[in-house]
Amino acid sequence: MSDSLLQSHRYGKRAIRLVHVARDGERHFLTDLDVDIALTGDLESTYLTGDNTGVLTTDAQKNTVYAFAKQYGVERIEDFALLLARHFVRSQPTVSRSRVGISQHRWDRITPQHSFVRQDGERRTVAVTHDADETWVVGGLSGLTLLNSTGSEFRGFVKDEYTTLPETTDRIMATSVSANWRYRETAGDFDTWHADIRRALVTGFAETYSRSLQQTLYAMGEKVLNTCPAVVEVRLSLPNQHHIPVDLSHFGLDNPNEVFVATDQPHGLIEGALMREGVPAADPAWW
Amino acid sequence: MSDSLLQSHRYGKRAIRLVHVARDGERHFLTDLDVDIALTGDLESTYLTGDNTGVLTTDAQKNTVYAFAKQYGVERIEDFALLLARHFVRSQPTVSRSRVGISQHRWDRITPQHSFVRQDGERRTVAVTHDADETWVVGGLSGLTLLNSTGSEFRGFVKDEYTTLPETTDRIMATSVSANWRYRETAGDFDTWHADIRRALVTGFAETYSRSLQQTLYAMGEKVLNTCPAVVEVRLSLPNQHHIPVDLSHFGLDNPNEVFVATDQPHGLIEGALMREGVPAADPAWW
Amino acid sequence: MSDSLLQSHRYGKRAIRLVHVARDGERHFLTDLDVDIALTGDLESTYLTGDNTGVLTTDAQKNTVYAFAKQYGVERIEDFALLLARHFVRSQPTVSRSRVGISQHRWDRITPQHSFVRQDGERRTVAVTHDADETWVVGGLSGLTLLNSTGSEFRGFVKDEYTTLPETTDRIMATSVSANWRYRETAGDFDTWHADIRRALVTGFAETYSRSLQQTLYAMGEKVLNTCPAVVEVRLSLPNQHHIPVDLSHFGLDNPNEVFVATDQPHGLIEGALMREGVPAADPAWW
Amino acid sequence: MSDSLLQSHRYGKRAIRLVHVARDGERHFLTDLDVDIALTGDLESTYLTGDNTGVLTTDAQKNTVYAFAKQYGVERIEDFALLLARHFVRSQPTVSRSRVGISQHRWDRITPQHSFVRQDGERRTVAVTHDADETWVVGGLSGLTLLNSTGSEFRGFVKDEYTTLPETTDRIMATSVSANWRYRETAGDFDTWHADIRRALVTGFAETYSRSLQQTLYAMGEKVLNTCPAVVEVRLSLPNQHHIPVDLSHFGLDNPNEVFVATDQPHGLIEGALMREGVPAADPAWW
Repeated sequence: MSDSLLQSHRYGKRAIRLVHVARDGERHFLTDLDVDIALTGDLESTYLTGDNTGVLTTDAQKNTVYAFAKQYGVERIEDFALLLARHFVRSQPTVSRSRVGISQHRWDRITPQHSFVRQDGERRTVAVTHDADETWVVGGLSGLTLLNSTGSEFRGFVKDEYTTLPETTDRIMATSVSANWRYRETAGDFDTWHADIRRALVTGFAETYSRSLQQTLYAMGEKVLNTCPAVVEVRLSLPNQHHIPVDLSHFGLDNPNEVFVATDQPHGLIEGALMREGVPAADPAWW
Repeated sequence: MSDSLLQSHRYGKRAIRLVHVARDGERHFLTDLDVDIALTGDLESTYLTGDNTGVLTTDAQKNTVYAFAKQYGVERIEDFALLLARHFVRSQPTVSRSRVGISQHRWDRITPQHSFVRQDGERRTVAVTHDADETWVVGGLSGLTLLNSTGSEFRGFVKDEYTTLPETTDRIMATSVSANWRYRETAGDFDTWHADIRRALVTGFAETYSRSLQQTLYAMGEKVLNTCPAVVEVRLSLPNQHHIPVDLSHFGLDNPNEVFVATDQPHGLIEGALMREGVPAADPAWW
Repeated sequence: MSDSLLQSHRYGKRAIRLVHVARDGERHFLTDLDVDIALTGDLESTYLTGDNTGVLTTDAQKNTVYAFAKQYGVERIEDFALLLARHFVRSQPTVSRSRVGISQHRWDRITPQHSFVRQDGERRTVAVTHDADETWVVGGLSGLTLLNSTGSEFRGFVKDEYTTLPETTDRIMATSVSANWRYRETAGDFDTWHADIRRALVTGFAETYSRSLQQTLYAMGEKVLNTCPAVVEVRLSLPNQHHIPVDLSHFGLDNPNEVFVATDQPHGLIEGALMREGVPAADPAWW
Repeated sequence: MSDSLLQSHRYGKRAIRLVHVARDGERHFLTDLDVDIALTGDLESTYLTGDNTGVLTTDAQKNTVYAFAKQYGVERIEDFALLLARHFVRSQPTVSRSRVGISQHRWDRITPQHSFVRQDGERRTVAVTHDADETWVVGGLSGLTLLNSTGSEFRGFVKDEYTTLPETTDRIMATSVSANWRYRETAGDFDTWHADIRRALVTGFAETYSRSLQQTLYAMGEKVLNTCPAVVEVRLSLPNQHHIPVDLSHFGLDNPNEVFVATDQPHGLIEGALMREGVPAADPAWW
């Protein structure tokens, strides 16, 4: 009767909150993660008939995260995601592909022993995709908010009938960086790589004299590829967080880029992906 | 020196807040929208060199939304998105593809004239993608939160070493529906279609005796395809909003599914796409 | 050495999520609550020395909510809050005053049996304060968003050197109502009262030709007092959700209040409290 | 006909977003604030009749913030709030009392010149209340999230019939500090004081071996009063952000406080106010 086809599907547990404490005598190490899991495979029957024979419950997926944290520890999120992603495919005959995403909250020490303060906003992230043939590791960061109070212009653009924006040779440029990058390998020095890439993004933003946020995006991505040979592809999503100079002329005051309104709505959004020449695309990595 | 390639890119304005009032004598009609615009095309030079010659500013994109609202009115979001999406490609030689997404806030009348109350949560949505060759209209809704207090079981699943979830023959099933569907055509009776599809989703959820949320997802999608011939593909994303029966045995009380804790973290997430047989895929529609 | 005094203190559990299902054969009744508890009393020693002898754990407070839901059911939030507030003072010698706040999520039926849809945004609320001498019941609602698309002006205000706002004889007025009202009694027909008060607020907003949101606030509060004799005091907090007409003159278009930008930041905020003449104040009710 | 009395009222602008850039040659200084204003006084007539003769528009209040930022600069939020609060009372005959609240976003330098990174989460705050007779300055901070991974126990509490929490001699203690403190004076070295008080809060949390979060709250408050003579009163609000050890015994694993679930709902909330002996209360400061 129906001619419906189940074209694609996946399922899993999201927002698994894991805090792990490792001890070296009096000195503790704190790791604080949000873990997301998605699985797919030979699971049509649960969609079509409710037959759950091949279904690993999302509750068991969650339990696996906690048990693995105890058994293997949680040092680097890239390794922990790899461990989990491989486990689900290896242990479940019905699961052909897994994706494990992790977002790490940062805590800094306030004593050498066991006291910490959380740094909100920026997160280190990873998404590992794994199937029988291939494994992809996509590192990342989100919530890194950067601002240049000068060194940015915006001129020479199209003037159609709806264009009223004045050209400017000096403006604030601000954005909250979301960056994801695909590693060439599935093992390596992820801590150093992440630190190097973060530095490349920050200096790429700060050191580029910008004629558009598009240009800054490309400069940041290029700097990542030039800095870290382990990266073969980088994707950036940069909201343009507009800062509008306030017109103070009604009050007899000029405003040479001193007083701004910061606005959220609307905002620009610039997105771009850069790859090394000759590297094959890897769509499943971004699944 | 660099071997970086700009693989893909797009840019535009997001979160454009538009409220439109139409008047029929004393009787007013209110439309309240969030509009997102993304454009791509022959724009590499702004990324590579900051040459903005071909760049339509995101500010002008925003202005176009407001000017078109005045010139053409805003009756159905599908038509308004089509109008905007076509305009950007048609009017800008550098723009080869546009995407216009709209999310509509619902307001109900409290008087026959000009007083309204907002209904939060559920939104009607649309995403139109347009290029020289083709136009795709993806209708949708989000934030529709449904609950069955019985009529749901979960049994017969895999028991691996990390499975502790007890089987159950009676549980609460709750989800917040995000649904997107691709229309066959770019013109038609979008209001009736949306109402029919919404009803199909709600009754598909309410009337399915559920052995898993996966099964419910498929039943809802199938009902959409069976109900509305104008739809060729539907994609659903259903969080499993767990309601956990409280163990009251410590207090000498049984709890035959009367008292629950509603939890947000973690939650399941079930995703699936259904297509009519023989319909070709349309990746750009989901860009 | 220290001359610090503990001037005031309270403690308790917040954000207790309770979903209760009552059954009348096939027909189910769903209640969905967030419960907050705060207790104070003869508890200085836990603050000063960490002596917990008199401390009822916040975990036990949470358990009490679930156990009482099973034992007594949850029909009206005012009664359930009274039950809990009295219990903590009565059962704990160290607790001299309790406050129980409840915020109710609204679910509407989609079938006569056991399927429901959530209505987000507006909540029914209550806050009961109880001590040995007195009990106060403060009913309320929050998140009721109302808009008049005309029938509002704003003129005749102060023009100081920083005033640039033009006077207007026609504008949109929109607000998200937070209202709290103190009942004269601790028992009565809370369902009818709540419905009557809500209607008074809505019609007070819709039917007042408004010269300022302040005037509308007073009209709404007065209507509550005139409509519901059970109320002795009402407090309103009304954000002015500005809708700014877009200047379309650059595009050769006029804009006679048809096209608006809805803004969040900044917003006005108007607050006011109305009491019946001769009624004594009751500060602890608002603790 | 009506016996309604307007018992109290206030109005103003909220969420005024101000970003200020000061320049010392190539070196820029960035200040990023949210400003809230509330005014009260002889303004009943606008509530009762819509007569706006004495109303300073909230739009003018906003303009004043931007104009003052240009005229006087924005160095310390305490001084800027004082300037604004005094202005409204001084310049408007109908305004008898003003309150100006400011919450400061923190930006750190990434270059010596004009590039910055935002530190989210923690904010420095101030609330100044001013009338003809008196001025109160309440400094503060919010969003300072602290965690001790040991050094916290919870024992010896009441065991009523709803108590199931096991006693523990070792647990994680975590909280997000909201602290407000009243200064003795309206002028002084606010930067140093804020730094000293913040350090007192952090070390008070980290160095207290805690038998309850109540005890930790008092220790933090006492340390503030002992550290900073300029403070006469401090109020703390500390959510208890529960970290629950995961039961791994099903998987043959013990869990000696290594693996935790971090939870948001429900949470404890501990609130307390400490004053120096002999200092008179100052209710309007907390208006």
